[in-house]
Amino acid sequence: MSRVYNFSPGPSMLPEEVLRQCADEMLDYNGTGMSVVEMSHRSKPFEEIIFGAEALLREIMGIPANYKVLFLQGGASTQFAMVPMNLMVTGKADYIVTGSFAKKAYDEAKKFGTPSVAASSKEKNHTYIPRQGELNLDPAADYAHICHNNTIYGTKYDYIPDTGDVLLVSDMSSCILSEPVDVSKFGLIYAGAQKNIAPAGLTVVIVREDLIGRAGEKVPTMMNYKTFADERSLYNTPPCFSIHVCKLVMEWVKKQGGLTAMKKRNQQKAGLLYDYLDKSAMFTPCVRPDSRSMMNVTYVMKDEEAAERFCKEAAKVGLATLKGHRSVGGIRANLYNAMPVEGVQALVDFMGDFEKKNS
Amino acid sequence: MSRVYNFSPGPSMLPEEVLRQCADEMLDYNGTGMSVVEMSHRSKPFEEIIFGAEALLREIMGIPANYKVLFLQGGASTQFAMVPMNLMVTGKADYIVTGSFAKKAYDEAKKFGTPSVAASSKEKNHTYIPRQGELNLDPAADYAHICHNNTIYGTKYDYIPDTGDVLLVSDMSSCILSEPVDVSKFGLIYAGAQKNIAPAGLTVVIVREDLIGRAGEKVPTMMNYKTFADERSLYNTPPCFSIHVCKLVMEWVKKQGGLTAMKKRNQQKAGLLYDYLDKSAMFTPCVRPDSRSMMNVTYVMKDEEAAERFCKEAAKVGLATLKGHRSVGGIRANLYNAMPVEGVQALVDFMGDFEKKNS
Repeated sequence: MSRVYNFSPGPSMLPEEVLRQCADEMLDYNGTGMSVVEMSHRSKPFEEIIFGAEALLREIMGIPANYKVLFLQGGASTQFAMVPMNLMVTGKADYIVTGSFAKKAYDEAKKFGTPSVAASSKEKNHTYIPRQGELNLDPAADYAHICHNNTIYGTKYDYIPDTGDVLLVSDMSSCILSEPVDVSKFGLIYAGAQKNIAPAGLTVVIVREDLIGRAGEKVPTMMNYKTFADERSLYNTPPCFSIHVCKLVMEWVKKQGGLTAMKKRNQQKAGLLYDYLDKSAMFTPCVRPDSRSMMNVTYVMKDEEAAERFCKEAAKVGLATLKGHRSVGGIRANLYNAMPVEGVQALVDFMGDFEKKNS
Repeated sequence: MSRVYNFSPGPSMLPEEVLRQCADEMLDYNGTGMSVVEMSHRSKPFEEIIFGAEALLREIMGIPANYKVLFLQGGASTQFAMVPMNLMVTGKADYIVTGSFAKKAYDEAKKFGTPSVAASSKEKNHTYIPRQGELNLDPAADYAHICHNNTIYGTKYDYIPDTGDVLLVSDMSSCILSEPVDVSKFGLIYAGAQKNIAPAGLTVVIVREDLIGRAGEKVPTMMNYKTFADERSLYNTPPCFSIHVCKLVMEWVKKQGGLTAMKKRNQQKAGLLYDYLDKSAMFTPCVRPDSRSMMNVTYVMKDEEAAERFCKEAAKVGLATLKGHRSVGGIRANLYNAMPVEGVQALVDFMGDFEKKNS
């Protein structure tokens, strides 16, 4: 067996030691005689898993006691509806449109009220994040919504927007756990798990307690945060395997030194690649320096044909899933937590060789 | 490692050979150098998995070409809302209340219209399924909803209700794939996967094509069947691992001889246990003979203390998760497809010994 360096945007790499543990336990979890995937979610061993995952996530992220952690399903796309269904009580909300998913969140919110676009980076194909001074925020909005890191475009906020007294809601799907974050600045944070947390099928929501219970009576039970807050995410059968792997990944993050260490490693990884890109005559980074994501690095070549040839040759040497999203083209290297420094170094080395050979 | 016979109501046993394959592939799926849980859902290998799972499910269940198969998230509980949101166009629907989940489906539907109870078995603690003549069906209803098999109470329809021109919608979470079923009799079938299909986190919906597109504009994108039908369940990141295991389980079912063979084996398994129960002086089956489930067998002892002692002693010899649901008490043996005949025989033998020793 030979593992590749997988630069997929998500689902994406998981720590190898976590996968090994999953394989070892697949027929018998911890002497129970059954797999985690066969275990009742009402059983003691599974309660230890789900409450353990929550406790570790709280510890690692420093989540204040007045926030609930919910393990949901349906991905960030479901949150695009749940956020307004639960929080848009007067019908007004601000959306900062920094990419496709931010736009989808805004469009979905229109079903439940009259959201506004407080800023957009569309005129430059979302290659930057608007600065604080460019945000046209409504002090009467129920909340302001941002997509913290834009997977497709490779941008990330290098600041937390100051929204005054207005709740800040953030989609952190592709940057959660990549660095420390001050949770208390947010009313609600959500993240699809399939990048830095666990296999696809799990959505983590971190929500301030006083925001729970605002949903109207007609909101479906499964779209109401209260349902899950009241039952510690065990209202119905949760995505058990993803929650189990979430716990293992949290243990791995902790062992690595927590989010401060993750940030240092992520800066090192992204730095390696951006430094090369900024010097290269063949590869051009897409994103304005102040808005660059550590998780998703987007770059282009002189044309799409060149980029395609590059990706194909890279795949042959075990550098997989480098093709950029169709909205941006070119190449995208997704460097989530589980991507080792060696993987990024191998990519940069390969780019160097490729540039030498082809220029 | 010693595997137990796990009588859990769900999540529940999976075929051992499926688990072995999952373990073997956990670090490298089919020579890709990555795990299924690390793979982009837009990749060719994953498309083969999801479309392969769909094709096998269609073949095994004989799903007609004018039905879509959707792989969703959120469990049957989410379907309790999605069904009325998509199908309750005039605001009327009939619900047959045969247990807790049927009741939950009915209660949820009230958020979207004025559903009626066409029949209920509550007066006898849901120990039977109403017969056709007992159904008070409204010919003007948008649909009639049944819970085909009631996991908690151990009941199952031994007939498909004749609803005339009214659409029939069935929650088959705990009986799907246990026997052949004529899909064309139904407008929509849904099932949480965690019993007979795959690990928790996946919901399978089988829906007649002409029923797609009836949802109003305000229905959330992720609650509209059309979203998933249009994109072959790849609108957003699906629960990839559960879908992969679904495909493996379908391959296993096919190798066993398909649903005709599954039914024969399930009859044999349930027969072993019910035959013993009908003769026993110590254990009493809960359900009226015409309404007995092959998947969930509920029975009681003279008191809860005796049942508790029985379950504890059974667990010691590797017969796990036999405690009945709190609404029924006593003992519940869940005999899903992956439970081998040997497991049921071991249970019946243990019951025989227990009865001899304690009477």
